Amino acid sequence: MESEDLLISRIARAVPSAFGRSGGELRLGIGDDAAVLRPSRGFEWVVSCDAFIEGIHFLAAKHPADSIGYKSIARATSDLAAMGAVPSFFLMALSLPRHRTGRWLDEFLAGAARAANELGLRLVGGDTTQSESIGLNITVLGRVPTGLALTRSGARAGDLIYVSGELGKAKLGLELVLRGADGRRKLAKLLERHLYPRIRVDLGERLSRGRIASAAMDISDGLSTDLMRLTRASRVGAIIHSDRIPTVRIPKAVHGDAKDLGLNPLEMALHGGEDYELLFTVPPKNVKRLRAAAGSERLSCLGEITAGRRVLLVDGEGHTKPLMARGWDPFRK
Amino acid sequence: MESEDLLISRIARAVPSAFGRSGGELRLGIGDDAAVLRPSRGFEWVVSCDAFIEGIHFLAAKHPADSIGYKSIARATSDLAAMGAVPSFFLMALSLPRHRTGRWLDEFLAGAARAANELGLRLVGGDTTQSESIGLNITVLGRVPTGLALTRSGARAGDLIYVSGELGKAKLGLELVLRGADGRRKLAKLLERHLYPRIRVDLGERLSRGRIASAAMDISDGLSTDLMRLTRASRVGAIIHSDRIPTVRIPKAVHGDAKDLGLNPLEMALHGGEDYELLFTVPPKNVKRLRAAAGSERLSCLGEITAGRRVLLVDGEGHTKPLMARGWDPFRK
Repeated sequence: MESEDLLISRIARAVPSAFGRSGGELRLGIGDDAAVLRPSRGFEWVVSCDAFIEGIHFLAAKHPADSIGYKSIARATSDLAAMGAVPSFFLMALSLPRHRTGRWLDEFLAGAARAANELGLRLVGGDTTQSESIGLNITVLGRVPTGLALTRSGARAGDLIYVSGELGKAKLGLELVLRGADGRRKLAKLLERHLYPRIRVDLGERLSRGRIASAAMDISDGLSTDLMRLTRASRVGAIIHSDRIPTVRIPKAVHGDAKDLGLNPLEMALHGGEDYELLFTVPPKNVKRLRAAAGSERLSCLGEITAGRRVLLVDGEGHTKPLMARGWDPFRK
Repeated sequence: MESEDLLISRIARAVPSAFGRSGGELRLGIGDDAAVLRPSRGFEWVVSCDAFIEGIHFLAAKHPADSIGYKSIARATSDLAAMGAVPSFFLMALSLPRHRTGRWLDEFLAGAARAANELGLRLVGGDTTQSESIGLNITVLGRVPTGLALTRSGARAGDLIYVSGELGKAKLGLELVLRGADGRRKLAKLLERHLYPRIRVDLGERLSRGRIASAAMDISDGLSTDLMRLTRASRVGAIIHSDRIPTVRIPKAVHGDAKDLGLNPLEMALHGGEDYELLFTVPPKNVKRLRAAAGSERLSCLGEITAGRRVLLVDGEGHTKPLMARGWDPFRK
């Protein structure tokens, strides 16, 4: 059995990382008691951490190790994207059962390395320990020009509410994986957003640098729960239209399954979680600039911010009702 | 059952923390996707993370909740102290079984708050999730004047090797707790270093600001293992004398127990771990300044750094033998 020190070198070799002294913003990487960072003038640091736990967030028997590695990094980085920050560094705390330190770990690290490369992250520290089940904790650091970080609290009445991409894809993938439908080749594409979520770093950066969005957050627990959080932080209300929500189209190949599973595209979009799309608000005067900045990204305008504190959903028949926060909550029964 | 959002507010109220916008180095605290930090000019940031896991690092049935809270923060901060950094901010990722979210959590948070207050830390972010057993991950950020961070790699042949405090105290406390001897009032003082470790922030800062130490680290896994790490990072060797190691004096009250437990003060000092004292090297020309900087702190000179790569121990009879790294390793069988 290898020691903790050997395990750390193995991890540091497998993912993009920086050993010892280095120039630029990283003064000292892995291998000491802590990393030392030298911030560039004109930038602020954005920092967040995210736990990813066996049995709660993933099932080791159902989810491939490389997806667990990829997703652990991607999830954490989504919080930086939501602030408009550019990811720079990460720390990885791994708690692993002994039987996960062999081939499983190699595959896990390959997934983590791919995410780190795609997202521009370098490993600068972490911790490894033995445990009964797999527990991951990722801390990410990024930077944003001073004063330009996007927050949840800047939305004002009259601002338009947007989301990127499609909502509910991750939930559909999760349901298929849980039901063992992931072996069917036709369905592989539907699993992608669940196993390897796409993180909206570029979009977040454009919304922030261009001073386009008044508020932003990532949709990690479901549109219903996260829109509630944004409006609460901004002390405003919202009205959104269900027919404007970019729901997932369920292909014929799973029509039967979807029906069996009771999967409803609108429900998945509202409460599904794990989409990691951006939810953001834009003052009407910035909409033209938003279109220019969006490029080919799919963006949907769901409705607008209101002065009251209520969050309302207009359904397909034109009826308005309160939107209930029924997204994912690890502590709800 | 309360939701994740309520749990987060409860945590943020219980420990020193910063909500929303703020001045100085903290631009945005808890309550958004991530924290935003504005580094002061002339400083570098030091960042580290530390996992603290039920069944591996502590036993929920044996260790008081407030000790678990205190120690989770203290352990992580010890890495900053070892770099000579002043602690500023922390992120706390809590994975908790549902039955730990009531009174246990209140006591845990009281311990964490006490450590954060003593160490000068404010909570700026984190994550909470449900889990089968208790898992904690603490990320700490501190700052050090540009270029003054203490590293493991600066030791040179001829430098003197020092440790702060006494070694083996934490191990003695652990053994007494494991054997249920913690109820005996006479022994309470002996448990303190195990339950509420003292972190050497002031000493680390003085060694760094005064440019006194050539290398430093904290002793978390035992002197034998950690001295090996320091010499390896500095590409040097070392010779230390067992009779100069500040071992713990076992009081009469536990003489019987200590004997029964097979506790040997020298063994506990060499391999016990969790003392969180500082191990550091000082060029001979700086020894006078070290004495001035140390004040009333107990410091012991164990020996010196050598040009070879061997790490040697001179025993009580004057025999020299290689020092084996037998400190704590979570992955050793």
